[in-house]
Amino acid sequence: MTVAITGGSGNISYSLAFRVANGDLLGRDQPVIINLVDIPDMEAKLQGVKMELDDCAFPLLVKTNTTSKLADGFKDIDVALLVGSKPRTKGMERGDLLKQNGKIFVEQGKALSDHAKRSVKVLVVGNPANTNCLIAMKNAPSLKPENFNAMTRLDHNRAVAQLAEKTGKTVHDIAKLAIWGNHSSTMYADLSHTTVDGKNAIDLIGKEWYEKTYIPLVAQRGAAIINTRGASSAASAGNAALDHVRDWILGTENWVSMAVPTDGKLYGIPKDLIFSFPCTTSNGEYKVVTGLSIDKFSEGRIKVTTDELIAERNEVEHLLK
Amino acid sequence: MTVAITGGSGNISYSLAFRVANGDLLGRDQPVIINLVDIPDMEAKLQGVKMELDDCAFPLLVKTNTTSKLADGFKDIDVALLVGSKPRTKGMERGDLLKQNGKIFVEQGKALSDHAKRSVKVLVVGNPANTNCLIAMKNAPSLKPENFNAMTRLDHNRAVAQLAEKTGKTVHDIAKLAIWGNHSSTMYADLSHTTVDGKNAIDLIGKEWYEKTYIPLVAQRGAAIINTRGASSAASAGNAALDHVRDWILGTENWVSMAVPTDGKLYGIPKDLIFSFPCTTSNGEYKVVTGLSIDKFSEGRIKVTTDELIAERNEVEHLLK
Repeated sequence: MTVAITGGSGNISYSLAFRVANGDLLGRDQPVIINLVDIPDMEAKLQGVKMELDDCAFPLLVKTNTTSKLADGFKDIDVALLVGSKPRTKGMERGDLLKQNGKIFVEQGKALSDHAKRSVKVLVVGNPANTNCLIAMKNAPSLKPENFNAMTRLDHNRAVAQLAEKTGKTVHDIAKLAIWGNHSSTMYADLSHTTVDGKNAIDLIGKEWYEKTYIPLVAQRGAAIINTRGASSAASAGNAALDHVRDWILGTENWVSMAVPTDGKLYGIPKDLIFSFPCTTSNGEYKVVTGLSIDKFSEGRIKVTTDELIAERNEVEHLLK
Repeated sequence: MTVAITGGSGNISYSLAFRVANGDLLGRDQPVIINLVDIPDMEAKLQGVKMELDDCAFPLLVKTNTTSKLADGFKDIDVALLVGSKPRTKGMERGDLLKQNGKIFVEQGKALSDHAKRSVKVLVVGNPANTNCLIAMKNAPSLKPENFNAMTRLDHNRAVAQLAEKTGKTVHDIAKLAIWGNHSSTMYADLSHTTVDGKNAIDLIGKEWYEKTYIPLVAQRGAAIINTRGASSAASAGNAALDHVRDWILGTENWVSMAVPTDGKLYGIPKDLIFSFPCTTSNGEYKVVTGLSIDKFSEGRIKVTTDELIAERNEVEHLLK
């Protein structure tokens, strides 16, 4: 199987590629080819990462290719980890960020449509991930919408870890946690269906702490990491990408959060967004958990993040042909 | 089991810690506690790495501790990955480097002796690794010399990968490769016993290419990575540390290269050096491969790297009480 990683010279890729080569993505008996993709300026750096991958003598790594050409990087791939995106620089408006990244994901969507396997699993990690994913999906006419996901698994894992810490339990004890909506500060970490060791999570931690402390804690965790570590979360983001795609391919019983294309039929979310829902996976397919009761508080939070995604979509309308 | 990592805020640790938490060091059914250790100035950064480890919700990771106190960091540990060391700065002589790092490893040896489990496996990665390891060992009177190794596994893996590439074979096809001596440019990548898919390695690649190209290629690979990637090899070094200790604990059939304490009885290497040999491992113990015939060329190369290690030892004689 072949895995492409864009932004191949960056920090998230550097945390990710070695673990892909180690079998953490596709399983420990699946040989893998890695295509590291980046812009032409980064080709030397890509080559350096390839040298280090070679130097690990990973038994499962058949070959590493490096390229700045999407047609080569996406040729016959099984998995695309779209990590690369332009970061927001000083003075840049969110609209500018959306548009500049939008162009990148138009090209990547087309190239995936033209060159990847029809079964390709595409995970967008580069921010703004949901809307970048929407753009790629809309520019990939020969692939199905279901080929495209964006990542909210880092938020999901953070939410699980914080709840485990607060309740003094382990991550194994936590079930049915969900991140809804956009991978941004409007995301909604929903504990209304969650159990900790079989007990109702909100009863354990208290409604007030949940609403006032827990939800913002999860939403602002990325900024807290930057403040503390002096660098953005690369290793935990890379790890979450592995978790997302591994579970998508190999299946999982517990709920996981995945941002997936909407069809207008789920929980009143409009059609044509990439929206995070609680999902289960089996046989290489994800399925949104349906039939959940949504209380008033959840309804309000879900509306906020939905509205943000609609506003982002409006900004890039011209790229969604 | 508890694993301590020094230089916990650095790049090698950042590549290493997440894979330890993922089960790549101790096996996929072994819960682990990680102690991240660094100097007081780095405590905030350590805390950031801990936050990211938490955010991965690793099923095997029981807890991450951060500290700048060796007594706490080494308390009851099973494995010590001594990654932190002072880098050589501009204008610094090798002797200065040895002495400045020497002080660090005196303290670490004492703390290991006082606080670690008697069965602790210590791997020194921080350079100059062999002599740092010797210093730690000599300052740890209540541990056995066999508790202490230095890392030449990155050199070993590089040598395997380069030979596989040259012969068009895979890393699985290569057996009985050895790195002798110091983890420095004098190391000797010895193919005189090596087979590639059952065939004599030197016959396949030619004696001239072996002596003139291959040996320097392996020895200078670290510098080549820095030139190409613009940063030193962190992920492949971290990977090699995992390989070394995992094989030490869990065993391996093929030869691996490990820098281990000498007793004066092996291949004419004097007592009291940390010297890389071909080794095998089983039941948590390493064993130097004995009885190999050493040809004239090998003898010369082994002498050069032995002399360098003796010279390094002489520089730090005062620290070896």
